[in-house]
Amino acid sequence: MNRFGEHFRIALWGESHGPQVGVAIDGVPPGIALSAEDFAGDLARRQAGAPGTTSRREADVPQFAAGLYNGLTTGAPLALVFPNGDVRSQDYAATAGHDRPSHADRVAQERFGGFNDPRGGGHFSGRLTVALVAAGVVAKKILPETLTFATRIAEMGGCADPLRFDEILREATAEGDSVGGVVECRVGGIPMGWGEPFFDSLESRVAHLLFAVPAVKGVEFGSGFAAARMRGSQHNDPILDAAGTTASNHAGGVVGGLSDGNELVVRAAFKPTPSIARPQMTFNRTTGRVEPLIVGGRHDVCVALRGAAVVEAAVAIALADLRR
Amino acid sequence: MNRFGEHFRIALWGESHGPQVGVAIDGVPPGIALSAEDFAGDLARRQAGAPGTTSRREADVPQFAAGLYNGLTTGAPLALVFPNGDVRSQDYAATAGHDRPSHADRVAQERFGGFNDPRGGGHFSGRLTVALVAAGVVAKKILPETLTFATRIAEMGGCADPLRFDEILREATAEGDSVGGVVECRVGGIPMGWGEPFFDSLESRVAHLLFAVPAVKGVEFGSGFAAARMRGSQHNDPILDAAGTTASNHAGGVVGGLSDGNELVVRAAFKPTPSIARPQMTFNRTTGRVEPLIVGGRHDVCVALRGAAVVEAAVAIALADLRR
Amino acid sequence: MNRFGEHFRIALWGESHGPQVGVAIDGVPPGIALSAEDFAGDLARRQAGAPGTTSRREADVPQFAAGLYNGLTTGAPLALVFPNGDVRSQDYAATAGHDRPSHADRVAQERFGGFNDPRGGGHFSGRLTVALVAAGVVAKKILPETLTFATRIAEMGGCADPLRFDEILREATAEGDSVGGVVECRVGGIPMGWGEPFFDSLESRVAHLLFAVPAVKGVEFGSGFAAARMRGSQHNDPILDAAGTTASNHAGGVVGGLSDGNELVVRAAFKPTPSIARPQMTFNRTTGRVEPLIVGGRHDVCVALRGAAVVEAAVAIALADLRR
Amino acid sequence: MNRFGEHFRIALWGESHGPQVGVAIDGVPPGIALSAEDFAGDLARRQAGAPGTTSRREADVPQFAAGLYNGLTTGAPLALVFPNGDVRSQDYAATAGHDRPSHADRVAQERFGGFNDPRGGGHFSGRLTVALVAAGVVAKKILPETLTFATRIAEMGGCADPLRFDEILREATAEGDSVGGVVECRVGGIPMGWGEPFFDSLESRVAHLLFAVPAVKGVEFGSGFAAARMRGSQHNDPILDAAGTTASNHAGGVVGGLSDGNELVVRAAFKPTPSIARPQMTFNRTTGRVEPLIVGGRHDVCVALRGAAVVEAAVAIALADLRR
Repeated sequence: MNRFGEHFRIALWGESHGPQVGVAIDGVPPGIALSAEDFAGDLARRQAGAPGTTSRREADVPQFAAGLYNGLTTGAPLALVFPNGDVRSQDYAATAGHDRPSHADRVAQERFGGFNDPRGGGHFSGRLTVALVAAGVVAKKILPETLTFATRIAEMGGCADPLRFDEILREATAEGDSVGGVVECRVGGIPMGWGEPFFDSLESRVAHLLFAVPAVKGVEFGSGFAAARMRGSQHNDPILDAAGTTASNHAGGVVGGLSDGNELVVRAAFKPTPSIARPQMTFNRTTGRVEPLIVGGRHDVCVALRGAAVVEAAVAIALADLRR
Repeated sequence: MNRFGEHFRIALWGESHGPQVGVAIDGVPPGIALSAEDFAGDLARRQAGAPGTTSRREADVPQFAAGLYNGLTTGAPLALVFPNGDVRSQDYAATAGHDRPSHADRVAQERFGGFNDPRGGGHFSGRLTVALVAAGVVAKKILPETLTFATRIAEMGGCADPLRFDEILREATAEGDSVGGVVECRVGGIPMGWGEPFFDSLESRVAHLLFAVPAVKGVEFGSGFAAARMRGSQHNDPILDAAGTTASNHAGGVVGGLSDGNELVVRAAFKPTPSIARPQMTFNRTTGRVEPLIVGGRHDVCVALRGAAVVEAAVAIALADLRR
Repeated sequence: MNRFGEHFRIALWGESHGPQVGVAIDGVPPGIALSAEDFAGDLARRQAGAPGTTSRREADVPQFAAGLYNGLTTGAPLALVFPNGDVRSQDYAATAGHDRPSHADRVAQERFGGFNDPRGGGHFSGRLTVALVAAGVVAKKILPETLTFATRIAEMGGCADPLRFDEILREATAEGDSVGGVVECRVGGIPMGWGEPFFDSLESRVAHLLFAVPAVKGVEFGSGFAAARMRGSQHNDPILDAAGTTASNHAGGVVGGLSDGNELVVRAAFKPTPSIARPQMTFNRTTGRVEPLIVGGRHDVCVALRGAAVVEAAVAIALADLRR
Repeated sequence: MNRFGEHFRIALWGESHGPQVGVAIDGVPPGIALSAEDFAGDLARRQAGAPGTTSRREADVPQFAAGLYNGLTTGAPLALVFPNGDVRSQDYAATAGHDRPSHADRVAQERFGGFNDPRGGGHFSGRLTVALVAAGVVAKKILPETLTFATRIAEMGGCADPLRFDEILREATAEGDSVGGVVECRVGGIPMGWGEPFFDSLESRVAHLLFAVPAVKGVEFGSGFAAARMRGSQHNDPILDAAGTTASNHAGGVVGGLSDGNELVVRAAFKPTPSIARPQMTFNRTTGRVEPLIVGGRHDVCVALRGAAVVEAAVAIALADLRR
């Protein structure tokens, strides 16, 4: 399904090498000033070009297709469009029938009876996250100004020391390989009580969106998987005052599915980019044999790098949807 | 929100110490034989009584309130009800105003203006998972028979050796403490192509439900967080044949948000039970001071134990919703 | 689908002769006092027993299965249950295979492969409107107190004079026949701006619910079908002041899909009760012949009579869902 | 809300004088051939230019923004865009603050705090129905080919004789006035059993969409409001054979909320165009007085004329959503 949200409602469309990527957002309050500049920062963070990211360049300036009048939101659906420019589909032509391992090619072909757009992954492409990041910018505009977002690469290739990240990227690049990473997003200032028990728990909603981001394979809140290795006496967060302040924040800001007034802490694990420069032995549907595949195109060495902006956007969208 | 699903649609209600817990399921095909015995196995797995689980005993026999005629589903909404029997609310009376750390008491009180039912956690109680497990039984009935579910405690208190689990429980019990755990669910036989790109990815839907389960703080698929520490050349799953069989299954059966024909592998991290027998220093809203709290009532030492049945049910519900 | 609503969310279950009829309502604010007495008035209006309505008697006292604590709503899902008591299924046994004209028997049988509960119409029965009326009572509790509901039989058997209604009922009864009717519901005090342009227009939402009520075949707002026979110069409602007061109310209180500050006026056309005492020539699936059918059971002569309470409930539910 | 549908899911955006009107459709099966020509017929029926319709001319050729590859649908969201060309916003400038009676101006201004786009009605404009008609074309493509649509103006200005329609339009035009009308849509070939009992009844879904169409004030199925004036013995549709064929079709093809195998018959009442050439006395927010207003711009004399294509599209969309 291409839609998400009950209050901040987004609908997504587009392909990697189609005419455009777009998102319609319903539920945006009227009177919010929006200009292309507002999007520049987050889009640049997601943008290709940094070491370890693909050399594909898109202008990535949103066009306001609807919902804006005199630079202010109108309360009607806001449609944001990113035309696709720097498209080199021929890079992908060679792989037709020779499905890239750990890409969606094979399942997309099966699911859509071979009618899916194969160019650059089509609708399954990470290119669509440009629209998510744009929606995240709008989400942050309508969240209380008191909310603070801090997002970082917590791990790259198993290393938690940012000073070593460049070296890790260089090594992987030199070896024609890719690396995974963990993105951590912290949001301060969320009032107590956002979210619902059970199916719209804050964790359910945030995780739902994060697992919609290509390459995310794990999501955890607070201590997360480490909590499973703790005792209750260690993990419990004693309450210190009437405001609900806790001495520790092993819960990551969510208890019973609701925000508890502490910092929201969420981490997303990104798998290593499946497109690597090395040849890979994999099944060729055309020849019916397992054969070496060289994946062309331009790709990130570590998708988590641009994933950081996407994770922050996803968290912002979920919060904008659950805000009270 | 108390509802989930687009095709297999569930709506939940109930409280720990209220009259009943129930679930209405819409979208159940007609003609499926259902009897209380069909539920006995999974409900027993969730049931209290095993070492390390609470001593609360409920009959946990579902009553068919609607949607069944002559022992067969009718195609109309199926309503399953579990009356609450073994209720000892007085155990909880003492804690009024003295919120239990890492429980929902404090945020529920804030969110619902003090009108929430505080007895045993009210609507936030793990008691409601009895209805999820029941819905999971129905879900498994309508999934193709070729699907196989295998669910286990993959870790308890940081230990992955099942032979040591009893010891871990005994130690924690002796120390008035609790332990966390990791539940792993594997589902074989899912055809290729279940799920949708982006917001209804198989991972999004499964994770959405798993994070609705009380005490779950992390969810991962396939290699999950370990994938973030791998190289692409290690993590990629080479395709071996036209059926999409892969040499490894680091993806855990999901690529591009869709099932890829391999075994679905999902793990959920459960935090240690927040209710522990030891006194805890925490804020008492009545006295306005941080004071020792003794949590009464009957509680699990390791919620992951009964969590296994709930995780399996959640996965089954998500699959029944996404089945094609 | 058995669910409706985005903010005031209801889920319905039950059959005419099953164990119970019930509704779970999510989105009810906490702290609202509710007792069985609050439901007595509207349920009595819907209740059987009036001239022209079936002689089936149900106690129709709601049981609070969840969401109420100390007589106040908790903010958790509110579940209301009506056990079925006065059931005489044998009345319906004779018609098995001999489908009643203009009833759902035939299509239900086809749609649900013969597994539908045939007793008294099963899930398709007007009996389920008891739950809608109950949900309407809750809806009215959470709407602003300034809203006023006035609902009446505007027409019976083509006659708009209430003084003649009893005579019409007597005549139809004497002839073993039934009559249709029109119910009009007027709601005063709705603030300007409820509803959304296009798919959640106030009219769309109200009509959606009204057409879910068995026997409703037409819905109109304000001048409705009469508007189609008017000139713009007659139909337009000139605005008189800054509050949006209009000189006339041909719009029935809705412009552009949104409430305009005037009285909401909606009418629902009920077909005559399909169950009549006269023999009807219709196809008998058992014999394969068109044969006279005598419909047993107890039935309303004019369903619009009890329909009035249901229409008011449906309007209240839609308003509670759209309230701002 | 700008979205509708569970299986054939549409999301709408745009304004009368904004950059474009668009619709994203999710749930379109892959492999369907689509070209601009496929849309020409229905768009022309909706198009301005016929006697009695506005003189605004738009090319109304859909641009495929996403979801199409090599002229075939891909299974990914299909985005259709209609750039706005022939815009004369200055026609509307004069009316700022002087709200047009029976238009959405006043309520939109209130609801959106004055930030709504006022040009040509903004998001409330009938211009958006171009996207509905386009979605209807796609809907008809995916419905079984055996379905037949026949849509006509059943009444204009209270007259049911099509030979007199031109005269009625000429008279109204000459008098600077407008007329209402009734559109009837008949769909043959719908299999038995589409729709759901209660909230997704075929009637609920169709009416929901029809009441989203600007100017629609009434919807009825089969005998509709006339049914309320009939006896059961007249109105009942006797079943004639095992296929469910009925001797009459007073039900209009829907019983118990489900299609009954007979022709679907639905009628929508359109109010007269609120924009008329005559001066109207109405409140001027700028001067604070009731003053004569001359509505500029180009308008339909009878919106039902282009409404016919929109009604057919709405019915097709609802059917595509409910198809089995």
